[in-house]
Amino acid sequence: MRQTRLDTARIRAARQVVDPVFLDTPLYRCEALEPVVGCAVSIKLETANPVRSFKGRGTEIVASRLADGGSRAVVCASAGNLGQALAWSGRGRGLDVTVVASRFATVAKLDRIRALGARLELVDGDHELARERAADIARYEGIRLLEDSLDLESCEGAATIGLELVAGGPSFDTVLIALGGGALATGVGHVVKELAPAIEVVCVQPLGAPALTRSWHQRRVVTTDSTDTIADGVAGRRPIQAVLDDLLVVADDAVLVREASIVTGMRLLLEHAGLVVEPSAALGVAAILEDRDRWAGRHVVTIVCGSNVDADAYRRWVGAAPVPAS
Amino acid sequence: MRQTRLDTARIRAARQVVDPVFLDTPLYRCEALEPVVGCAVSIKLETANPVRSFKGRGTEIVASRLADGGSRAVVCASAGNLGQALAWSGRGRGLDVTVVASRFATVAKLDRIRALGARLELVDGDHELARERAADIARYEGIRLLEDSLDLESCEGAATIGLELVAGGPSFDTVLIALGGGALATGVGHVVKELAPAIEVVCVQPLGAPALTRSWHQRRVVTTDSTDTIADGVAGRRPIQAVLDDLLVVADDAVLVREASIVTGMRLLLEHAGLVVEPSAALGVAAILEDRDRWAGRHVVTIVCGSNVDADAYRRWVGAAPVPAS
Repeated sequence: MRQTRLDTARIRAARQVVDPVFLDTPLYRCEALEPVVGCAVSIKLETANPVRSFKGRGTEIVASRLADGGSRAVVCASAGNLGQALAWSGRGRGLDVTVVASRFATVAKLDRIRALGARLELVDGDHELARERAADIARYEGIRLLEDSLDLESCEGAATIGLELVAGGPSFDTVLIALGGGALATGVGHVVKELAPAIEVVCVQPLGAPALTRSWHQRRVVTTDSTDTIADGVAGRRPIQAVLDDLLVVADDAVLVREASIVTGMRLLLEHAGLVVEPSAALGVAAILEDRDRWAGRHVVTIVCGSNVDADAYRRWVGAAPVPAS
Repeated sequence: MRQTRLDTARIRAARQVVDPVFLDTPLYRCEALEPVVGCAVSIKLETANPVRSFKGRGTEIVASRLADGGSRAVVCASAGNLGQALAWSGRGRGLDVTVVASRFATVAKLDRIRALGARLELVDGDHELARERAADIARYEGIRLLEDSLDLESCEGAATIGLELVAGGPSFDTVLIALGGGALATGVGHVVKELAPAIEVVCVQPLGAPALTRSWHQRRVVTTDSTDTIADGVAGRRPIQAVLDDLLVVADDAVLVREASIVTGMRLLLEHAGLVVEPSAALGVAAILEDRDRWAGRHVVTIVCGSNVDADAYRRWVGAAPVPAS
């Protein structure tokens, strides 16, 4: 494998500082879903922890290193999950955490960030504006900026999922990974491609937020002017070159899916797996639904990466249409 | 502690034959739920596995011993979760599994039992009639009858949850355990009382299916003529003397809760924890809601023991009333 910015030995070492509540998450076959989607499906469940997403794996590494180095404060931009996780990890280590988010972000996520004791600043724009504002705060206040996907800790945290997927000899063919900023895909992808290279790494992004997928296909950074998706966790417009470079090494494919497929994916996970998931966490199932022939006869793992939803929006999404028969 | 039928060393040994997919389940604080219920709450999540309940822990032990002993077949009565789990564990070991259930059982559970390859026989009556029929089948066919809660494997399986709860020094005050036949309560209770006796063990049963709770309070087996609860997983009428004897040793209290509290518990777990649970798995939250003063200032673990629900019934239950504000 060509080099990425990641190093598996360093990932294994980083894993030691992550609170065990985020590690060794459930990985299990979901046979009830299989007749509906037409292939063998296993779920890697990243929602049964105090922040209901995988982001705690990375923020534990960041917060641990900051605390060890004597830092007192950290700031990040977040669509909501990274901010919650950083607030949780920072609180346990006495760090002052500032989170910058779009005022259009999922309310439940913003509420949890506040409840966890972080300072929350809202910007009147999208996630890219929040990124700019967070960088400004870091500069003005002279504190650490955590940049998701660019900063190695965020990728190393995600990569610990990869270690768990390949532990004990994996029995699956493909891992489907939600693609947003790229930390999850490059982290998991690095470990999988290094330790179990036969496993196909497929990234999935919404058609309404396609910047990094288009960048991967064109092998250069492609930005977009706007995003239009319910998958708030992956709605970036400006991919980071260094992350794209890593993604070009580890991803076998990157596909785009329609909003309707994401909603159906959420509904299928509720009806057949008993899982409440946020839209980003249904991208994998959406990808299966959009190309059933590709996956028929294969065993696919989908990482259910988060479950933070606004109750009303969730009900509107999953309750709107009849449920397909199994 | 007075003796129960269980032995912690034997439980530790039994754990070795359980498929890891059922072990080391998530245990985490759920702070979003805490303002609503008024105490610290942690969740022990037993639903993120191939059968969506804790029952696989026990059926793995049964099926493993049967296969080791050269047996080819086993029968059990089940409200649905034990049957699914036995079907799963038996399939992996080449055992013929027969499950007897009430024709009024949760359809999703019956469908999964069939899908897992077990022979399903329905009786025109409640769970107690299914128990009689399963015993008849075992006698006629000369095969092993698995009697939930009476047979030690079912209690030992549940007891492995107790080992996980006390591992690493527990930080909570009370564990709330759904009470049906008694396997979960006596299994978890045995381990907790032996290894961390300061932790309070509280059993929770629906007012509409109170037989074992009444038996515990009266210190003798009390049966009822009928049950009336949506908590299908715990709706027994005829407690087993040996199980009651163990329960008298390990339980600090046994409480009854109203149906409305169970429904509210299910709704709170959905809204604030993102968890779809079956009614039996909401008994712990229901108990907190019915006696808030008792739990204020305490840290309570509730075992979320299953998530197998009929989608329509679930929507009817949790969608019917407004959600309390947090």
